Amino acid sequence: MKLALIGYGNVGRAFARLLDARRSTFPFRIVAIHTARHGSAYGLRGGVPAPPFGPPADSVEEFLDQSRAEVAVELTTLNPATGEPAIGHIRAAFARRMHVITANKGPIAHAFASLREEAERALVEFRYESTVMDGAPVFNMVRNNLPGVRVLGFTGALNSTSKLVIDAMRRGLSFDDGVREAQKMGVAEADASYDTDGWDSAAKGAALANVLMDARVTPLDVERRGIGRLTPERVRELAGNRKRPVLITRGRLSGGKVKVRVRAEVLDETDPLATVQGTSNIILFHTDLMGTVGTVSIEPGVEQTAYGVFSDLIDIAKTI
Amino acid sequence: MKLALIGYGNVGRAFARLLDARRSTFPFRIVAIHTARHGSAYGLRGGVPAPPFGPPADSVEEFLDQSRAEVAVELTTLNPATGEPAIGHIRAAFARRMHVITANKGPIAHAFASLREEAERALVEFRYESTVMDGAPVFNMVRNNLPGVRVLGFTGALNSTSKLVIDAMRRGLSFDDGVREAQKMGVAEADASYDTDGWDSAAKGAALANVLMDARVTPLDVERRGIGRLTPERVRELAGNRKRPVLITRGRLSGGKVKVRVRAEVLDETDPLATVQGTSNIILFHTDLMGTVGTVSIEPGVEQTAYGVFSDLIDIAKTI
Repeated sequence: MKLALIGYGNVGRAFARLLDARRSTFPFRIVAIHTARHGSAYGLRGGVPAPPFGPPADSVEEFLDQSRAEVAVELTTLNPATGEPAIGHIRAAFARRMHVITANKGPIAHAFASLREEAERALVEFRYESTVMDGAPVFNMVRNNLPGVRVLGFTGALNSTSKLVIDAMRRGLSFDDGVREAQKMGVAEADASYDTDGWDSAAKGAALANVLMDARVTPLDVERRGIGRLTPERVRELAGNRKRPVLITRGRLSGGKVKVRVRAEVLDETDPLATVQGTSNIILFHTDLMGTVGTVSIEPGVEQTAYGVFSDLIDIAKTI
Repeated sequence: MKLALIGYGNVGRAFARLLDARRSTFPFRIVAIHTARHGSAYGLRGGVPAPPFGPPADSVEEFLDQSRAEVAVELTTLNPATGEPAIGHIRAAFARRMHVITANKGPIAHAFASLREEAERALVEFRYESTVMDGAPVFNMVRNNLPGVRVLGFTGALNSTSKLVIDAMRRGLSFDDGVREAQKMGVAEADASYDTDGWDSAAKGAALANVLMDARVTPLDVERRGIGRLTPERVRELAGNRKRPVLITRGRLSGGKVKVRVRAEVLDETDPLATVQGTSNIILFHTDLMGTVGTVSIEPGVEQTAYGVFSDLIDIAKTI
């Protein structure tokens, strides 16, 4: 199967390395790569660590036309407020009857229902496992393993930066010290407010609600409160009582509608939702038939996000 | 699809209720039930809360011959030392070209490799999701969601009775008080030593190693130590240091062989493995591509075990 990558940052390069390592078992080949910064590359033979980039295509549409690929892999940087340009890239791929994998939660958080319909009309597959929890089975957990189950709600501790900042405050450091630690680890962006104000968690909550509960919400519909009001004093006072604030994303059915909420909740420090630290994550699904069941991921990195894309690709290959 | 149930205790009845509730969506029908105690019933039309049992069939073989079912569902009580009589029941079903679902871990812990081969030769499906963690996705987590991944090891807190006994000792009660509490909750058997000596955990460890790591071990190969040496004093001393003993099942590769170990490990009480209480369970899979990822199940009951059997059935219906 021939792939066109849109975006080639850390995840893209990890994904290329993974395909290269498994190419004797899985017949997947990156044939084209497009980045705004480095340019566009075509006619690749797969497994290229440093592809020979030429000038960038005039547009993603032109790139996809030239790529001769069957699957578009969307790995660009998120504009959290709109989900663009990724949504446009995905639409362009569907219009060309290409399957799409995205590791970018923007499209799922902002436009999942219409993208799913466009994929159905184009008779192509659409996968997005890496958009929440870095490639750990979240959407696939429900789709593949919980047949016949209705998801009534979910609860997740899904944001790494907030965990690191709260942990730093627990150790007596300031909020800003915590942000700098998270930035040094490569977890937080230069502007960490996207994480600490709860936008990242809201986007993940909207994505989960849209896919698992057919919610048709966007991050703007999420009742959102970040960790900005927490102080080291308050965090340490809670620690003295064996409590920990955790930025929690919840979705639930309320009067036939799906409500999504992001808030720093004060939990017992032995609550499973409070025990995943650093980049570790946990999500619990509240269901009708299978009770409460979930996925936990311990210290995932960029290789795991790349694996999520890889697992989507295998899934598409099996389905078509 | 027509089903023959071997065994009709709590799980069997919960499974019958579940099929009944979903019969408009899923065309599964229990047509025959065999129990040693109540007798055998044939020609059922599905969704029967109290089936009209006649005299028991002379043998499970005879029951299966009379049942006219396509799927045998093995739900008998486990003999943990041998895996019988369930292994014999499953072989009898394979010999009749019936698909098999078992919620009984004995066969998987004692004879998985040969049963898998027999199923392959008979061209039938074999499923066992409910044998570990009461129906939560464990085997399906790996098979369905982690394609191309190699499981290098696993770590699980999988035994409910030991959790309840340790929790009771933490509250100042005796070991025996804890056992009685677990019995009252219906979690422990009259003879709780199967749980507290680590045999239940060893059987689950062998099952996991056999399925996920092709280990070909039995519970007798597991290095096993129970919680019998723990005292309330020791548990409370640990609690003072924010530690908790947890009966942990570990599997790992060592010199090309799979080693399985059961032991009460002393963990920080904020360790994810230490935070699942009561009937809650957690398993972590240590993998090559997806790092450490796992499944958590919060307070499952018999309905969830029944759901695991139901999900196996849907899986078989999809596969054949």
